[in-house]
Amino acid sequence: MFESAELGHKIDKATFREEVPKLRAALLDAQFDLRENGKFPVIILISGVDGAGKGETINVLYEWMDARYLSTLAFSAPSDEERERPYMWRYWRALPAKGRAGVFAGSWYSDPIRDHILGHLGKGDLDQRMDQINRFEAMLVNEGALVLKFWFHLSKEGQRTRLKAMEKDPRTAWRVTKDSWARLKTYDKLQEAAAHVLRMTNTPWAPWIVVEGTDDRYRSLTVGKVVLDALQKRLADPRDQNYPVAPPLAPKIDTLDVLTALDLTQKLEHKEYEAELAKWQGRLAELVREPEFGKRSLIIAFEGSDAAGKGGAIRRITAAMDARQYQIIPVAAPTEEERAQPYLWRFWRHMPRVGRVAIFDRTWYGRVLVERVEGFCGEADWLRAYTEINDFEHELKEAGAIVIKFWLQISDKEQLRRFKEREKISFKRFKITDEDWRNREKSGAYHTAVCDMIDRTSTGLSPWTLVEAEDKSFARVKILRTVCERLESALKAGKGGDSEREAGKSSARDAAKNSGKVAAKVAGKGPAKEKE
Amino acid sequence: MFESAELGHKIDKATFREEVPKLRAALLDAQFDLRENGKFPVIILISGVDGAGKGETINVLYEWMDARYLSTLAFSAPSDEERERPYMWRYWRALPAKGRAGVFAGSWYSDPIRDHILGHLGKGDLDQRMDQINRFEAMLVNEGALVLKFWFHLSKEGQRTRLKAMEKDPRTAWRVTKDSWARLKTYDKLQEAAAHVLRMTNTPWAPWIVVEGTDDRYRSLTVGKVVLDALQKRLADPRDQNYPVAPPLAPKIDTLDVLTALDLTQKLEHKEYEAELAKWQGRLAELVREPEFGKRSLIIAFEGSDAAGKGGAIRRITAAMDARQYQIIPVAAPTEEERAQPYLWRFWRHMPRVGRVAIFDRTWYGRVLVERVEGFCGEADWLRAYTEINDFEHELKEAGAIVIKFWLQISDKEQLRRFKEREKISFKRFKITDEDWRNREKSGAYHTAVCDMIDRTSTGLSPWTLVEAEDKSFARVKILRTVCERLESALKAGKGGDSEREAGKSSARDAAKNSGKVAAKVAGKGPAKEKE
Repeated sequence: MFESAELGHKIDKATFREEVPKLRAALLDAQFDLRENGKFPVIILISGVDGAGKGETINVLYEWMDARYLSTLAFSAPSDEERERPYMWRYWRALPAKGRAGVFAGSWYSDPIRDHILGHLGKGDLDQRMDQINRFEAMLVNEGALVLKFWFHLSKEGQRTRLKAMEKDPRTAWRVTKDSWARLKTYDKLQEAAAHVLRMTNTPWAPWIVVEGTDDRYRSLTVGKVVLDALQKRLADPRDQNYPVAPPLAPKIDTLDVLTALDLTQKLEHKEYEAELAKWQGRLAELVREPEFGKRSLIIAFEGSDAAGKGGAIRRITAAMDARQYQIIPVAAPTEEERAQPYLWRFWRHMPRVGRVAIFDRTWYGRVLVERVEGFCGEADWLRAYTEINDFEHELKEAGAIVIKFWLQISDKEQLRRFKEREKISFKRFKITDEDWRNREKSGAYHTAVCDMIDRTSTGLSPWTLVEAEDKSFARVKILRTVCERLESALKAGKGGDSEREAGKSSARDAAKNSGKVAAKVAGKGPAKEKE
Repeated sequence: MFESAELGHKIDKATFREEVPKLRAALLDAQFDLRENGKFPVIILISGVDGAGKGETINVLYEWMDARYLSTLAFSAPSDEERERPYMWRYWRALPAKGRAGVFAGSWYSDPIRDHILGHLGKGDLDQRMDQINRFEAMLVNEGALVLKFWFHLSKEGQRTRLKAMEKDPRTAWRVTKDSWARLKTYDKLQEAAAHVLRMTNTPWAPWIVVEGTDDRYRSLTVGKVVLDALQKRLADPRDQNYPVAPPLAPKIDTLDVLTALDLTQKLEHKEYEAELAKWQGRLAELVREPEFGKRSLIIAFEGSDAAGKGGAIRRITAAMDARQYQIIPVAAPTEEERAQPYLWRFWRHMPRVGRVAIFDRTWYGRVLVERVEGFCGEADWLRAYTEINDFEHELKEAGAIVIKFWLQISDKEQLRRFKEREKISFKRFKITDEDWRNREKSGAYHTAVCDMIDRTSTGLSPWTLVEAEDKSFARVKILRTVCERLESALKAGKGGDSEREAGKSSARDAAKNSGKVAAKVAGKGPAKEKE
């Protein structure tokens, strides 16, 4: 969930100065229309890591909007009045009326997350609370409310830096308390809990908007633009007020995203490639023959641009396995039988038994990629698909399956080169179609869809691994190594007993490592080298 | 949830013979249209108490419908194939395709309920499973499926009788196994678990349809008619196939319902009334002054026909309390401020602190009564209100509040008498308005709304108490006695520690007792007498 918010987004002063006056004017207009319309309230939740600018953002909203119709509600320890009533009472009485906006600093999420981190609230109880919250928010949205949930994220290092900077500045030093530093110590715990909570409550009707908190200007502009977009979209909606309207996905504020942050120049020389390939193929061959694997199954999901090299990578994996053990499932347009079933049915039918491997060449993510971009399904359908897919992968995990997801990325230029090459080589000609050329024209829309997909479905339990596929050798080795490492840690965890939690932990670790790698790569370091 | 299914519904042979040919023809037509339309599947779950006719009903469906396009899937212990894959795999592969209907004998509910009863699945885990099921069913409905969930209910005595009858009949004796008798022993546990599961999963998009299983003809006719109604409604829906459409509420098959089953002839002589009134008012005065009550709050909700005597009953309750301790909240049309908030907001604002009492003269049930009947809100709104209200009362319970709900019922004739009386007596004239007269004309619609309300919101945690209010003395004493008994058992449970569970248990017991009373009353026994 946090990949996009660890890239080091920044807005320079000049851009900020140019953007803000337009944004403020538009926000005031939209707020005026909201009052005139008077049919729905706007509920803005400001949550996230300490020091990620929650307080500053609320001040910015006050500065930019008409404060007379904006109420802020800060929730810390409950009052006597509140403690003696049901838990949600304090939030009910703080709800903004129709035509108004309310900013919640601290919300119904704060207590459950804190109690869980402190060990006062077990996993099961936490999930029950999240279910209650989902029902509560569904009710709000059904009653017409526009619910915008912001989560401000900082990497651990980012949090330390921010706290130090705030301490130095006399204007903000008072904000940094002993508690702030103590919370840095529980950072990992918070991240794990937050990732879980965000996955559970990332509903189509009230999705989370994760914002990188490092840069003040980027953060303010993002929140301002999201609020504006959502307000405008909702005001323009011709449907009845009591119809749940999904807020828009986060707008692009700058050109930095999880894909552009990839370092596609990474390469592997032929000799090194051969050595590495042999090493990891050998390791994989051992791993799938371990007795422990007889209790698990492995699902490898490949997505990527056309001609990114999915097929080649798959062949390097299967080379290490017995043909009776694995199945490759190429996913193209659904058959008639499949179209007569719910979307995920065509993937469920291929779920492997324990001890077996299923490799999907394109996957259930088609719904939020090709189907979204080509309009094969409605907006409501692909919006709910994120949640459905997360639920689906969660079920697989619960049953002991190990799910590894790869996105293979190449540059437009390299794609063109490969297309042309394919047209020349006769045995590769069948691989290039008119459709491939058409897809290239929509590369902007696909780019956005991929970024949204990674933000919304790279969960602690089931992270995406982004593969720089410009160099085929580099890509294949990274993929094989990832498969081995994930498989190894899952099997080790399985032996320890509590397989589900351990696998979850290791995946979360992988995800963090992966994000770290993205950042490292931006700085020019290759992950393969890192390892050695 | 089970009130309506313990009334002893019966359909005589002649009616059945007359109805069935029409129903069969219509079902075949609808099934043909379903195939032609080909846009959605019909998923029918057959669940419930053993011996309530699950198998027989499936046979009837086969007899009445075109078996070529109807598949039945019986789920018992999973096969090897199934055990080695994720839990839901077996259900996914059994889903009927669009244009077809599938009958599930045993479903995704069976294992969690059984495991919970056997003690293998704790309350928290059970709730997590129910949350997963809700998400799964939401996905099915979003994908266009029509999901009909039947729960066949039998009272404990009814189950024993059925099993004996089946054992005697050589054609059915084979159905009765040792297991069947063993399950009779766990009847109470099953009922408690079922009530909880049905509450948690009674979603607007896939609500439960509870059917009394005692009489074969009644059961078959009900299922057939519900399937027919739902199919016809869904086929006639002009909206896009991917829009969730709520199935209709259970149709009325006969004239017997929770209201008509009440024995309104029950009376209390003046002398007895005075003695009883003094006794229970005294008891109530003691109870609200107990130190234990300082940790709880009491919420009494009154609904009833116009002129049913709510005000008089409330005054008999408040007479036992200190004016500083209670608040009466008369609920009329919402204020402007209240209209600018989600529907339940106006009730949340009046939630009492611990140690206090709130008495609602009309309540949050207005949404499913007057607002439904008068069309003040859309169908989707009052349909989701059942779930929202159950969630709301669950939250109150969790916070230690004791919630007692009364429905006061009088006959049309008695209502007319009281209306006329009110017009005559000057100080009562303000109590009768043109609206009251108008409401009388809609008494049929109100009757249906009240029955649906009781079926859908009388939960184990928060049961309705139906009050025969034809005789004011009888009604007032029944109300006071119920308040005292509920309060006493809740305070006792609270002292024991685990207040929530205990309170839940006692409410479930009350509900069962209440249903028992309804049945008893049909047989001419008064509950007041029962006690003495």
